[in-house]
Amino acid sequence: VADTSTFRSDLARSTATTVHVRDFDLCNDLLGKVTLTEMVFVTMKGKLPSAAEARVLDACLVALVEHGITPSSIATRITYLGAPESMQAAVAAGLLGLGSVFVGTIEGSARMLYDALNDKPADHDLAALADAVVEGLIAKRQPVPGLGHPVHRPIDPRAQRLFEIAEENGKSGRYVQLMRLIHAAAERRTGRVLPLNATGAIGAIVLELGFDPRISRGFGLMSRTIGLVAHIYEELQHPLARGIWEMVEREAQPGERP
Amino acid sequence: VADTSTFRSDLARSTATTVHVRDFDLCNDLLGKVTLTEMVFVTMKGKLPSAAEARVLDACLVALVEHGITPSSIATRITYLGAPESMQAAVAAGLLGLGSVFVGTIEGSARMLYDALNDKPADHDLAALADAVVEGLIAKRQPVPGLGHPVHRPIDPRAQRLFEIAEENGKSGRYVQLMRLIHAAAERRTGRVLPLNATGAIGAIVLELGFDPRISRGFGLMSRTIGLVAHIYEELQHPLARGIWEMVEREAQPGERP
Amino acid sequence: VADTSTFRSDLARSTATTVHVRDFDLCNDLLGKVTLTEMVFVTMKGKLPSAAEARVLDACLVALVEHGITPSSIATRITYLGAPESMQAAVAAGLLGLGSVFVGTIEGSARMLYDALNDKPADHDLAALADAVVEGLIAKRQPVPGLGHPVHRPIDPRAQRLFEIAEENGKSGRYVQLMRLIHAAAERRTGRVLPLNATGAIGAIVLELGFDPRISRGFGLMSRTIGLVAHIYEELQHPLARGIWEMVEREAQPGERP
Amino acid sequence: VADTSTFRSDLARSTATTVHVRDFDLCNDLLGKVTLTEMVFVTMKGKLPSAAEARVLDACLVALVEHGITPSSIATRITYLGAPESMQAAVAAGLLGLGSVFVGTIEGSARMLYDALNDKPADHDLAALADAVVEGLIAKRQPVPGLGHPVHRPIDPRAQRLFEIAEENGKSGRYVQLMRLIHAAAERRTGRVLPLNATGAIGAIVLELGFDPRISRGFGLMSRTIGLVAHIYEELQHPLARGIWEMVEREAQPGERP
Repeated sequence: VADTSTFRSDLARSTATTVHVRDFDLCNDLLGKVTLTEMVFVTMKGKLPSAAEARVLDACLVALVEHGITPSSIATRITYLGAPESMQAAVAAGLLGLGSVFVGTIEGSARMLYDALNDKPADHDLAALADAVVEGLIAKRQPVPGLGHPVHRPIDPRAQRLFEIAEENGKSGRYVQLMRLIHAAAERRTGRVLPLNATGAIGAIVLELGFDPRISRGFGLMSRTIGLVAHIYEELQHPLARGIWEMVEREAQPGERP
Repeated sequence: VADTSTFRSDLARSTATTVHVRDFDLCNDLLGKVTLTEMVFVTMKGKLPSAAEARVLDACLVALVEHGITPSSIATRITYLGAPESMQAAVAAGLLGLGSVFVGTIEGSARMLYDALNDKPADHDLAALADAVVEGLIAKRQPVPGLGHPVHRPIDPRAQRLFEIAEENGKSGRYVQLMRLIHAAAERRTGRVLPLNATGAIGAIVLELGFDPRISRGFGLMSRTIGLVAHIYEELQHPLARGIWEMVEREAQPGERP
Repeated sequence: VADTSTFRSDLARSTATTVHVRDFDLCNDLLGKVTLTEMVFVTMKGKLPSAAEARVLDACLVALVEHGITPSSIATRITYLGAPESMQAAVAAGLLGLGSVFVGTIEGSARMLYDALNDKPADHDLAALADAVVEGLIAKRQPVPGLGHPVHRPIDPRAQRLFEIAEENGKSGRYVQLMRLIHAAAERRTGRVLPLNATGAIGAIVLELGFDPRISRGFGLMSRTIGLVAHIYEELQHPLARGIWEMVEREAQPGERP
Repeated sequence: VADTSTFRSDLARSTATTVHVRDFDLCNDLLGKVTLTEMVFVTMKGKLPSAAEARVLDACLVALVEHGITPSSIATRITYLGAPESMQAAVAAGLLGLGSVFVGTIEGSARMLYDALNDKPADHDLAALADAVVEGLIAKRQPVPGLGHPVHRPIDPRAQRLFEIAEENGKSGRYVQLMRLIHAAAERRTGRVLPLNATGAIGAIVLELGFDPRISRGFGLMSRTIGLVAHIYEELQHPLARGIWEMVEREAQPGERP
């Protein structure tokens, strides 16, 4: 039985003439006064960010909005073809693949960094910690979250720029430092080029902003929703979906397997 | 067969060292320089908004982020209970109900206003047009999109504030005017209190900002994705989902139907 | 406030030692005794079908299971690529496009037939009714649901076979007759070849079986879920998703628009 | 670049007058001749099942169709409330929560059994293997998949009946035996009552039927899609969704946290 004494949500409440989100009066305190990114802080943390915090989170969110033709945008476009009356279903279809392989890797790096660092003293040796994290992953034959990119090699320019912005705004602390050290350790240990990618950078930076690693994947969802709506808009003007279907069907038609 | 000469997407392109979104260099022109809301304009329109435009769209987006316990947040929480490893699926579940009844009504009002007004000359009599729109809907026994609210009566304070913000920023034109006239005509014609709600206001305002009515529902999706991530975060700290299940199951158990 | 006196579900109930679905004891009456298709009748209607009814519904469901590379199976495969840990999300992505354009057309034809016929006397002139339905749709510039196919022309062999099976099992009544007459009227009226397709046949036949047209789209969902799981299984053995992504991205890369 | 020489799907192919699913002519070999469950074998394995195999899979699928008010059916009903025009979205929402906690546990048990047994010789000591599996899970502080149920205690009657049906049909082999031994070992080792539940039984039985453990969760999706359509049908006749919303919102409204 649900214990109704603790069964409650504190995110919002309404009366006939007011809406409150957390402790803010939506109409008087927020509308016309805060940006959407500031509203992310209000909703998730119950307070407004500093200008520096807003700038850093804006950069992380902007970085993930749009990457052109991806599995996610293909799923959205091809779903919209069959159900144009349900734009929300097309956007949802595009979000559903943001799992362990793409975008959800933000969560992989954020959890890795948080689990390694959150209970360590301030003077803990980060280089040794980075080595231990990399060794642990290699022992389990797991990839290092946040490293590797098929196109942006040897450096992902987005990660580099995001770290600069974090630095400029005083948000480059021990999580960012550990991510960089893990990157160096992994390249050294494997002898391979493993670019520190945008999701690795964002995983570290959202921890610097004080967000919980368990919801870090959510920032990718926020950004990609915007990009997926843009893909639907382009699809309305210049459709690809039927061409995708025809191309894939033609290429995949059964014949002799070599 | 897909005509590959026209089969293309212009939203983004990458090289090893650059990412472009539309004609903007992501790392040099956008990261650290634009807000997430400005990025909405970049992605959808290929250009940066004026400060006034950004302020007005920010207000529309902020207004829709969070409404507490709704069908949408219930669906997200109860889905997360069964598949906590797939946060994206829980958020997608919450978006799927943003159809013709909730939030998708932005599209209903935007299409109504656009279809009525987009081919009319600048001096067209808006009051007569509003009457015609209302009569047409009543004749088809359809509700007027953007009107009505169960709690915010007789006035939805969010709609009122959003119209003020549009006005202050020079974005209150003929679409807003027509929405207000339709509201007045509908209340006069039916003799009922029909609050002009937030989705009605936003439907009008996004037309003032030059967006296509066919993707207007997408603004609701952008905002709600943020709110749904916040619900998952609250669920992690203070879970409701199992209590929802138990409460509904207990209340709905079969017995004698009266 | 929910009226808990009428707030109830009668589909299933459990005790420590029993599960009932409708009025059937799951373990003693159903498991090992009924087929999945018979279970569809149990769940939807609360009673077992006759052998003829089961055979006819089996045929309708079997017809829709698998159609190779379609928008639906593309969405499932490309979603599975990013989130292999969430097979349910990949299947859901494939279902989301089964809307007004594909498969959901079962509902279009079922509603058309039901709305035209359900309140007519048994001796109503079906040929005149068919003409009126076609004229009505043409006047509204709407296509006739259940007609048309890009490949199966001039006849969809599945529709033909399904009508034979319905006939052999005594389930070819006035809804099937009206669908055939609408088909003839539409071809005569437009002078075009408009094959009566599988979804048109199934829309008519599920009405003959006494199902509500409002849930007729659901039969397509049941069948396609099976097919989408099969696509994931083939994807595991012989992956296409990454190839789809690469092919689409390569073909769609920005360049000069002709 | 996709290697188009191996880029292909063999599930179905069509000509103007024929549809083939695997090597079967849909119209001549399948429609009117096979049940939906037999079609599962055709699609997944490319061949028809024996009568015994069909009976056993029918039982597994029938067992999972309907469990009344669950997180899954709540998600479907509450999504349908907002988007009644998109039944497929409501069903998809209900599937999205079938992850690691509910139903997806079929996959947990199937993988556990398969990983333990598939490379062992026919005379391997199953009791010792069961002990080792249980010790391994306890060492990793993980629960044993397929064990435990809040209501069906000490025995899940569905699991018991499914094992009987498998036995009667000659499909109770070493995977079923191992699942039973793991159950006994876990209860002995923990001293707790841990009912072997329906998903545990089904995980073992689908391995006996020769299915790949990686798609075993798919059987749950097939069944639940049917149940979710039935929930939408009941919702149309006797709606719960608005009542669920009102009940949850009322109970969860912010106040003093104790």
